[in-house]
Amino acid sequence: MSESPEVATRYVHKYGGTSVGSVERIHAVADRVARSLEAGQQVVVVLSAMAGETDRLEGLAREVAEEIAPRERDVLLSSGEQVSIALLAMALIKRGFAARSYLGWQVRILTDDAHTRARIEHIDTDALNDDLANGVTPIIAGFQGIDTRGNMTTFGRGGSDTTAVAVAAAIGADECRIYTDVDGVHTADPRIVENASMLHVVTFEEMLELASLGSKVLHPRAVEFAGKYGVPLRVLSSFGDGDGTLITTEENDMEQPVVSGIAYSRDEAKLTLLGVPDVPGIASKILGPIADANIEVDMIVQNVGADGSTDFTFTVKREDFVRALELLEAVKADLDARSVEGDNHIVKVSVVGVGMRSHAGVATRMFDALAAENINIRMISTSEIKISVVVDERYLELAVRAIHAAFDLSDPPVKD
Amino acid sequence: MSESPEVATRYVHKYGGTSVGSVERIHAVADRVARSLEAGQQVVVVLSAMAGETDRLEGLAREVAEEIAPRERDVLLSSGEQVSIALLAMALIKRGFAARSYLGWQVRILTDDAHTRARIEHIDTDALNDDLANGVTPIIAGFQGIDTRGNMTTFGRGGSDTTAVAVAAAIGADECRIYTDVDGVHTADPRIVENASMLHVVTFEEMLELASLGSKVLHPRAVEFAGKYGVPLRVLSSFGDGDGTLITTEENDMEQPVVSGIAYSRDEAKLTLLGVPDVPGIASKILGPIADANIEVDMIVQNVGADGSTDFTFTVKREDFVRALELLEAVKADLDARSVEGDNHIVKVSVVGVGMRSHAGVATRMFDALAAENINIRMISTSEIKISVVVDERYLELAVRAIHAAFDLSDPPVKD
Repeated sequence: MSESPEVATRYVHKYGGTSVGSVERIHAVADRVARSLEAGQQVVVVLSAMAGETDRLEGLAREVAEEIAPRERDVLLSSGEQVSIALLAMALIKRGFAARSYLGWQVRILTDDAHTRARIEHIDTDALNDDLANGVTPIIAGFQGIDTRGNMTTFGRGGSDTTAVAVAAAIGADECRIYTDVDGVHTADPRIVENASMLHVVTFEEMLELASLGSKVLHPRAVEFAGKYGVPLRVLSSFGDGDGTLITTEENDMEQPVVSGIAYSRDEAKLTLLGVPDVPGIASKILGPIADANIEVDMIVQNVGADGSTDFTFTVKREDFVRALELLEAVKADLDARSVEGDNHIVKVSVVGVGMRSHAGVATRMFDALAAENINIRMISTSEIKISVVVDERYLELAVRAIHAAFDLSDPPVKD
Repeated sequence: MSESPEVATRYVHKYGGTSVGSVERIHAVADRVARSLEAGQQVVVVLSAMAGETDRLEGLAREVAEEIAPRERDVLLSSGEQVSIALLAMALIKRGFAARSYLGWQVRILTDDAHTRARIEHIDTDALNDDLANGVTPIIAGFQGIDTRGNMTTFGRGGSDTTAVAVAAAIGADECRIYTDVDGVHTADPRIVENASMLHVVTFEEMLELASLGSKVLHPRAVEFAGKYGVPLRVLSSFGDGDGTLITTEENDMEQPVVSGIAYSRDEAKLTLLGVPDVPGIASKILGPIADANIEVDMIVQNVGADGSTDFTFTVKREDFVRALELLEAVKADLDARSVEGDNHIVKVSVVGVGMRSHAGVATRMFDALAAENINIRMISTSEIKISVVVDERYLELAVRAIHAAFDLSDPPVKD
């Protein structure tokens, strides 16, 4: 147990829009970074734009044009982080620390040229490593990069998480700490399940399911990235002092609960094509036009048919429901199907946990809990670490609470 | 008189903060640029930040720290133009024109590393010329550049004018048009002299005197730059359709009025050291400490002394008055001078005109006009194209009107 390690621990701190939403909050962030530095840690900070700023800028763009040129949208939106990084640098310098702000192109965060949803291809680390070696704290604008031709690019909403993880991977950080307005990842949404408990550890895979299913704590792409490069991620509150939730790779000696948490998604809609010929290639004939229209499909269920025909059901985001329905009517005529049905008052509830791989009976326990509350299951879909059901939206809270209780999640699943 | 010139006329349009102060105003700018393009002109646009934005950002910085790190101040402030250029590009693209926004570093406007008051050293024109050749309108963020180490720099208030002129010089524009909220340069401030007339043509030298003396239409550095590189400059209204004022080199056949205009400056203060030894080197002993304190000195007057001593008077900006007075008290003890006097209720009124070089009697006419109104002259200073007097501040309006009338400036001095 050495008290003074020779090599400093290296952290990436990422603060979201709410955490830098005012001058007062920026000072609070500066204090937190200062405490890390005083403890002998090396810190690279990644910031989002001040809360509300991105919405303000998008509002201006929408006032100017209905169709917004993507290249110019990226120039516009990337001005938001420029403000927050400069202000935090000023606040740290005021406290006597050397600090230096970096825009995406200054770091050089190289991306492809897919404006508004660019992907990071490479991060130059020379300047960052030099700064850290010289006691300077780099403060990087999240969400933005530069393509090979020198155009500004952005990563889409939540992209600052991706910046933080990518930077952590590039500089070999010991941990990437995502400071947010919640104290960690919970077994269920605390607004629905009052006694939901905080998870101390989850795996990347679990977090991915929890994030993409609606526990809006971390951007899924960031989790994916962290998993791919093995960057330990921690979600914790920028307002309090808790240890938050560590997201890491599965370890053999980890005391693994069967189920980590219950996720849900409200904005779902379901479409069914009834009586389609049960022949090969039918799925792509149905989903092709949907995909061409850039509508994301989530769950897909096809039952074995009787008398040579079958029913084909899938879910889409609720905002895409009307358009998907129109497209399906065209497909119906084309395939000589019997009819189209749709329901945009459904929700998805999922049980997530790496432990369920090795445990039979998770599904039964989930379905029993729903049956006991007389909740009808409309669709079922399963993966290695997840079981999802679609139910009527009026049952959402009831279903989440019933399943949460059935798996005894109110007690912290991992004690430490 | 060819109706269709083979080489397109090339313009730089610069629009200030008020001209892009709202989405509505940005659309008006887009319409104006579109008209130029439809007339077959090539246009490069330079923009300021939307009105009020720079003040908002500076306010945030002041909330964060009293002493603002200059490098970070430049990162913060340069976000303002980023918003306006993106919005104008969107507005032009919406109208069916190809347009592309450029930040200072994207053009590459290379500057020295003097943050907050950087000077342009070089402008890369390859991308701009390519764009113009391909029918793309470049829209450049004013006020900002990049130093050799990749840091953002800014040029100080009014720096967008400098960007416009420098770009015009670099790409060999036929004219640099500064669109603003006034319709041109006047013979005097129209708020003081009701019948002040608009000047159709002035020389760079005259404009320099008029600008630095308080006709706040154009930034002096931009005028200097334009004069140095022979870029024809035009000041005109972004709200109306007039031809504005052309600022150009003096031509022999130009019908040259004796006096072009009357300028004034309100924020002046005057300090006098009485009874200093009349020996060589005394001026630098007095002004050295003032210069060391970064206080700008404007007029300097020293009379021939009697009995081996003299009086030394100079003017400073009113905001520097108290500090200058303190410094002068120390100098007084040092030089064994008799006493220090100061007055911070004075103003400066100047007559400007290249024509006065060849005309005797301008000074007499000016002094007569003041005497006729019983206005006491406190200081006099002259240059080749300017005569300035210091008077009590209560006489400002009266003095400007009297001199304006004495030189018959209400009639347009150049008819065309």
